[in-house]
Amino acid sequence: MSLVVVGSVAYDGIETPHGKVDRILGGAATYIALSAGYFTPVNVVAVVGDDFAQEDFAFLEGRGIGLEGLERAAGKTFYWSGVYSHDMNERTTLSTELNVFANFEPKLPESYKASPYLMLGNIQPALQRGVRAQMNGVRLVGGDTMNYWINDYRPELLQTIREWDFLLINDSEARLLSGHSNLRKAASAILDMGPNTLVIKRGEYGALLFRRDAHFMVPGYLLEEVFDPTGAGDCFAGGFVGYLAGRGIDLAAGHIDSKELGRAVIYGSVMGSFCCEKFGVDRFRTLTREEIDRRFAEFREFTEF
Amino acid sequence: MSLVVVGSVAYDGIETPHGKVDRILGGAATYIALSAGYFTPVNVVAVVGDDFAQEDFAFLEGRGIGLEGLERAAGKTFYWSGVYSHDMNERTTLSTELNVFANFEPKLPESYKASPYLMLGNIQPALQRGVRAQMNGVRLVGGDTMNYWINDYRPELLQTIREWDFLLINDSEARLLSGHSNLRKAASAILDMGPNTLVIKRGEYGALLFRRDAHFMVPGYLLEEVFDPTGAGDCFAGGFVGYLAGRGIDLAAGHIDSKELGRAVIYGSVMGSFCCEKFGVDRFRTLTREEIDRRFAEFREFTEF
Repeated sequence: MSLVVVGSVAYDGIETPHGKVDRILGGAATYIALSAGYFTPVNVVAVVGDDFAQEDFAFLEGRGIGLEGLERAAGKTFYWSGVYSHDMNERTTLSTELNVFANFEPKLPESYKASPYLMLGNIQPALQRGVRAQMNGVRLVGGDTMNYWINDYRPELLQTIREWDFLLINDSEARLLSGHSNLRKAASAILDMGPNTLVIKRGEYGALLFRRDAHFMVPGYLLEEVFDPTGAGDCFAGGFVGYLAGRGIDLAAGHIDSKELGRAVIYGSVMGSFCCEKFGVDRFRTLTREEIDRRFAEFREFTEF
Repeated sequence: MSLVVVGSVAYDGIETPHGKVDRILGGAATYIALSAGYFTPVNVVAVVGDDFAQEDFAFLEGRGIGLEGLERAAGKTFYWSGVYSHDMNERTTLSTELNVFANFEPKLPESYKASPYLMLGNIQPALQRGVRAQMNGVRLVGGDTMNYWINDYRPELLQTIREWDFLLINDSEARLLSGHSNLRKAASAILDMGPNTLVIKRGEYGALLFRRDAHFMVPGYLLEEVFDPTGAGDCFAGGFVGYLAGRGIDLAAGHIDSKELGRAVIYGSVMGSFCCEKFGVDRFRTLTREEIDRRFAEFREFTEF
């Protein structure tokens, strides 16, 4: 079933121990859409400037991503640059230029409004809520957030996630949002805030999924070489929600096959791991569904006992 | 099959956010033996001072642990004390008094020498090698080490682990020993040093097992409350090697059922998780094999997809 993805489409400057690139295609919506597109039809809502290159537009379109909701505004595309530490466990932001993204007001094309699945990338909570309100009969909605919104926009954020099926954040954000350092306690507190499902990303250490009646744990895939971790968390999100949408899974349903939720988390991990193998979105220029399913099978082999 | 465990038996002073205790039973050999004892007959080689309490002796004996090799020397028992940070992720050592442990020269009772399984807790590499040399026809030997031996006793350590089937260390030790920050590369380099199996403990993030032809990944068990993490790594080791010994598994054999190795790692994780539920060794005063197998089944439920 079709999925609407809302968030940033950006140009990134990235430096890792493996090299340096500038003004390459990035942004949360880009990574989520590219990743989810392997599992289900995807339509993007975002804004770019008049500097947005035709070849980047063509690449996304070539991957089958719906771009009717990709607004073009006068000005420059959102730009971010950062540098990773030697072991890649830390990242320093060098610059953030919001540009046209500063006035982003997501407007859904008519053709998107009946889409049953909605994934809200990390943007201001009020904007996320506004998108949700434009949808007719959405079946499953979830999203991401970050420490800035948790600290400085807490009431708005709480009002927003109350309507969500799932919240997908990292472990430090889960601790910050809940006030608990123990992740089981943090999860319990966050499930009280509205979402029926919480997914906690732990980077190289894998991911956790929590619901009232179940949880699921997955270790991180062990890459021989982490080339560039930019976008890995968003690719995880894309794999997770893309799998749910592709299978037509409804998280609010009374009975859910918990193995299916496990598979969604594994596909998330698989997509996050592929993302790290090349700079930016480059891995998605060649990645096939067969490679994805092979890695999914490896996860089974490396974890079954 | 019976297992010989060599290492420290100590008294510990521990402060966590949950409370403070002093001069409670501890030490690597104690934790390894208590944990392994649920899976296989265990005999300990260690030294204590004349202050070692009869009730601690009786507790170990009551758990079925062979103490013929527990030497009593004039002086005081090894004493360690430390304090944990608020989130328990950091530990500061307040004092280390080696006492009788300073002159520890492990001597194996005759009755131990034909034991097929040997687990060497974290002591000086030359002493570990000396114990190995006293055994007749040992079938599987492995052990633990730490940053101090890796940095300051490297040639001795390399000579020692060359004869081991498995090395069981944490991730920072694996990086230090190998010189690689990527764990797949670190594992490959360490397998070149002799052991056919490397187990990497990652604390709350679980554990990894590597062999030339296979690897296995397990996420950490999510405890609602970590009461005291002291000894968790040693309990992991005890569960791992105890399971192998109990099942008579030979790591050097041509064909090994990789699922059995996975189960050994899971039992290690289960034992490490129980250890954290009370101060020191207290959880082992009541823990039953039924509880252990229930948690093992939970691991399956929370990771299968």
